[in-house]
Amino acid sequence: MQSTMMPVQLSTNWILDRAGTYFGEQTILGRRPDKSTYRCSYADIRRRARQLAQALRDKAGVARGDPVATLCWNHSWHLESYFGIPAAGAVLHTLNLRLSPDDIAYIMDSAGDRVLIVDDVLLPVWERVKPLLRKPPSHVIVVPFDGGAAAAAADGTQGYEEFIAGDASAYEYPAQDENEAVGMCYTSGTTGRPKGVVYSHRSMVLHAITGCMPDLFALSARDQVMMVTPMFHANAWAVPFSAAMVGAGQILPGPHLGAEDLLDLMEEGQATMALGVPTIWMMIFQALSAPTRERRLVKGMRMLIGGAAVPQSMVANFERLDMHILQGWGMTETSPLASVPILKPAQAALPTHERQAIRAMQGMAVPLVEMRIVDDIEGVRPWDGQSSGEVQVRGPWITGSYHDTPNDPGKFTDDGWLRTGDIGTIDAQGYMRLVDRSKDMIKSGGEWISSVELENLAMGHPAVAEASVVAIPHPKWGERPLVVVVKRPGAEVDAAALREFMRPKLARYQVPDDFEWVDAIPKTSTGKFLKTKMREMYRDRLSVTPD
Amino acid sequence: MQSTMMPVQLSTNWILDRAGTYFGEQTILGRRPDKSTYRCSYADIRRRARQLAQALRDKAGVARGDPVATLCWNHSWHLESYFGIPAAGAVLHTLNLRLSPDDIAYIMDSAGDRVLIVDDVLLPVWERVKPLLRKPPSHVIVVPFDGGAAAAAADGTQGYEEFIAGDASAYEYPAQDENEAVGMCYTSGTTGRPKGVVYSHRSMVLHAITGCMPDLFALSARDQVMMVTPMFHANAWAVPFSAAMVGAGQILPGPHLGAEDLLDLMEEGQATMALGVPTIWMMIFQALSAPTRERRLVKGMRMLIGGAAVPQSMVANFERLDMHILQGWGMTETSPLASVPILKPAQAALPTHERQAIRAMQGMAVPLVEMRIVDDIEGVRPWDGQSSGEVQVRGPWITGSYHDTPNDPGKFTDDGWLRTGDIGTIDAQGYMRLVDRSKDMIKSGGEWISSVELENLAMGHPAVAEASVVAIPHPKWGERPLVVVVKRPGAEVDAAALREFMRPKLARYQVPDDFEWVDAIPKTSTGKFLKTKMREMYRDRLSVTPD
Repeated sequence: MQSTMMPVQLSTNWILDRAGTYFGEQTILGRRPDKSTYRCSYADIRRRARQLAQALRDKAGVARGDPVATLCWNHSWHLESYFGIPAAGAVLHTLNLRLSPDDIAYIMDSAGDRVLIVDDVLLPVWERVKPLLRKPPSHVIVVPFDGGAAAAAADGTQGYEEFIAGDASAYEYPAQDENEAVGMCYTSGTTGRPKGVVYSHRSMVLHAITGCMPDLFALSARDQVMMVTPMFHANAWAVPFSAAMVGAGQILPGPHLGAEDLLDLMEEGQATMALGVPTIWMMIFQALSAPTRERRLVKGMRMLIGGAAVPQSMVANFERLDMHILQGWGMTETSPLASVPILKPAQAALPTHERQAIRAMQGMAVPLVEMRIVDDIEGVRPWDGQSSGEVQVRGPWITGSYHDTPNDPGKFTDDGWLRTGDIGTIDAQGYMRLVDRSKDMIKSGGEWISSVELENLAMGHPAVAEASVVAIPHPKWGERPLVVVVKRPGAEVDAAALREFMRPKLARYQVPDDFEWVDAIPKTSTGKFLKTKMREMYRDRLSVTPD
Repeated sequence: MQSTMMPVQLSTNWILDRAGTYFGEQTILGRRPDKSTYRCSYADIRRRARQLAQALRDKAGVARGDPVATLCWNHSWHLESYFGIPAAGAVLHTLNLRLSPDDIAYIMDSAGDRVLIVDDVLLPVWERVKPLLRKPPSHVIVVPFDGGAAAAAADGTQGYEEFIAGDASAYEYPAQDENEAVGMCYTSGTTGRPKGVVYSHRSMVLHAITGCMPDLFALSARDQVMMVTPMFHANAWAVPFSAAMVGAGQILPGPHLGAEDLLDLMEEGQATMALGVPTIWMMIFQALSAPTRERRLVKGMRMLIGGAAVPQSMVANFERLDMHILQGWGMTETSPLASVPILKPAQAALPTHERQAIRAMQGMAVPLVEMRIVDDIEGVRPWDGQSSGEVQVRGPWITGSYHDTPNDPGKFTDDGWLRTGDIGTIDAQGYMRLVDRSKDMIKSGGEWISSVELENLAMGHPAVAEASVVAIPHPKWGERPLVVVVKRPGAEVDAAALREFMRPKLARYQVPDDFEWVDAIPKTSTGKFLKTKMREMYRDRLSVTPD
């Protein structure tokens, strides 16, 4: 029997219309590079996103399914692009401005970006990327984030405001199937080049609704959301879409991510919720512990923290300030929301310490996502809190492949689950806890560093016989890489020389600062680096600090 | 560009698995006909729903898409059926036990019900329906709600517990497209026979997630939901699915719907939220105003009220008791959630009286639903709070047709919107308010009565020249019908005789109690009954009370 329901397709255009009509007066608060703030509304965002859509179609010849890239900080033009690019039927492709020019160029070529929207203050990055591109975009649109002075100087570009000028009140969204692409993000792999994950209108809308639920972000029309997470990181966890859907205000901090700057802006916008990586929140906690003046933050503020594991002490510290952490676990491949530690009645009633211990777990699969622990030999593991294996997930906003890439059995199981590469357990209550990682990635300030890539680079130096890289705990960045090196007999190289040798191929945050010189690296019986042993050996090492 | 997201289909089976695994210990509290209470858990519901699915497939030969009917009160067997019938790939068809046997028989034949699940205490209803059926179901399964004594007595039936006996731990759900039917409800029309609305797995899951959002039911794992709304009324507003999805407990009151009974059960189950029609809540407010003993209800309890308009005084009265009303507007055709009066920051800050006035409106379209006001002549009306017209809605859980019925242009617009038949306005803030109804329906205790049907019946009496029926306000039932009659010259009939003449074709609640004898009925220039005038004339009449 077929249902009689209307075949209405899910679409981010519908979110834009809801925000702009029902919540037209709600505020978007932004901060410019000169630290001045400005305000606009969802009515503005809707009107201008539709102008952008019309201009992309009529002036830039963008067709359905064409990728349009953004190289932007968090600001209202970026938010317009979040909606305006899909409203043109095109694909929002957010570029990570922290990557090396080489990686950005590779990613733009791989996606086939037709148009680039770039901040005036990021034109220097673009100038380094441009010569590396095989297929440059036909149009480069410059956002006057810093007032437009920089934009006027650039060759072969046009200003955003001139580009979108015109009346788009009669603009009609293209009719699209909900499985068509709405956006894409590239993810860094352990080895090889970044790979593209392509989100659909369907996955984005489902994720945005689910994120609003009371056990997740609990977003309502009366929230003001501070968006510290970069909008180029898995769509800022799709919170810009969730917030617009329910009419919550958004606070977009631009490039100023220091603790005092963020606190100033949270006060000005009266943030009720904020999202960011643990690194940011550690800085904020320190600033709040030694305040320069009394802070008037909203009481009972919620903080959505993801991108790296949250220490239990952080949950406890903030709770004493009446600030409440919700940890989210996921990755670019999972849109990114895959699990959160939802409290059941029995858990909510536990003593503080035990309750906070649950809040520091990665938690249970969110609605519409399924999760299991699988061991290559033992198969699916029981929920006993002991049996560990790879965390695998499945759901309507989990990727089942990579853009233009042959299917990699190392990433997907035969029965259709994503292999996350993380190792975890699930306890009898359904709470997942990460215990290790199978992929050799280091998480520094919320950004990934591939240990395998660093090893390959280091071993490219003629004086290096062997190099192995492991993550070392770091008080500010969470983790930093330690490069453990065995020199070739008779050859000489020091840390400074090896670092300079590696630097040109790396983003700034990926360049290692810490080297250890040894005679031999511990190995497994099959000759692989014994990283568990090495992590143990160097656990208490104080990592050299980059800033 | 196609997305890389997994093609995972939305399904109520996934809700069942989530409730049963993550929230297996959560309580379902039920009350039997003898008023004793019992408890079970989501783990029980999942295990037994899967047993039911297996039995339907293996013992009753139910195939994908076959309708399976329920004629049940609100209890845990009904909840099992909510999940077990779809888990068999079949279609949950809830029958309204208050309809006349004639209507129930028509609806069962129209749907083609293959199996009936019926309460032992409702076997007398079934005995009256059975002889009227053209195609009786092949299996009649009797729920031992009252302990099973009644069940043993019935011919041609089998007991529910024997039917589902067996191990279904290896049962596999059928692979289904999300647009396949999951359930169906019949709706009473102004004229003609009831018509079927068929929900899909997709529409039910989308509705269930959206319903949980903070601005709607705000359902979390820490809620206990009192389900006063019958599970045969638009799937109890799909709240049984929403609650299971987030792991909230459910409280199922069975047939005891008196105020003191409901209060006892809400206390026992420590309900944090309840849903029902205004009639129920008026009784409860009266009981709380003159309490027989101190009540220990959960503080800050939320009440979801729908099925008829909520008076502002009711919002205010309950707020004084720290009980908070959320009005929902919708109908069987809209799954049913179409609008709620979501408070924006500016509205939440209004003086109490003005805020409560907004809470008494029908409100703004919920996420994923679009709403507009259309006048046949003027077209789409502006949001000015003044321009009225028909309320039209569109969305993924709004019906676009009726089961096995040729499309009726009176119900659907050419551009694909549902014509609700209600007349309303939308103000500048987006809040919709009903001002009248275009269809001549009377809402009595949450159930519909067709004035056209009553008129046709009355005019069938040989002594009646003309009869017109309008709704009269009623303190307990909200509205009751008043039959305004013009007798044929020289003919005689009184209220008692006319009522008896009409009774056999009507459900008990539909039988009119109140008659007015006049010389002429006010008419429009085209000869139609001028009902707006009549409603005005009889507005202050004290309706005769049925009980």
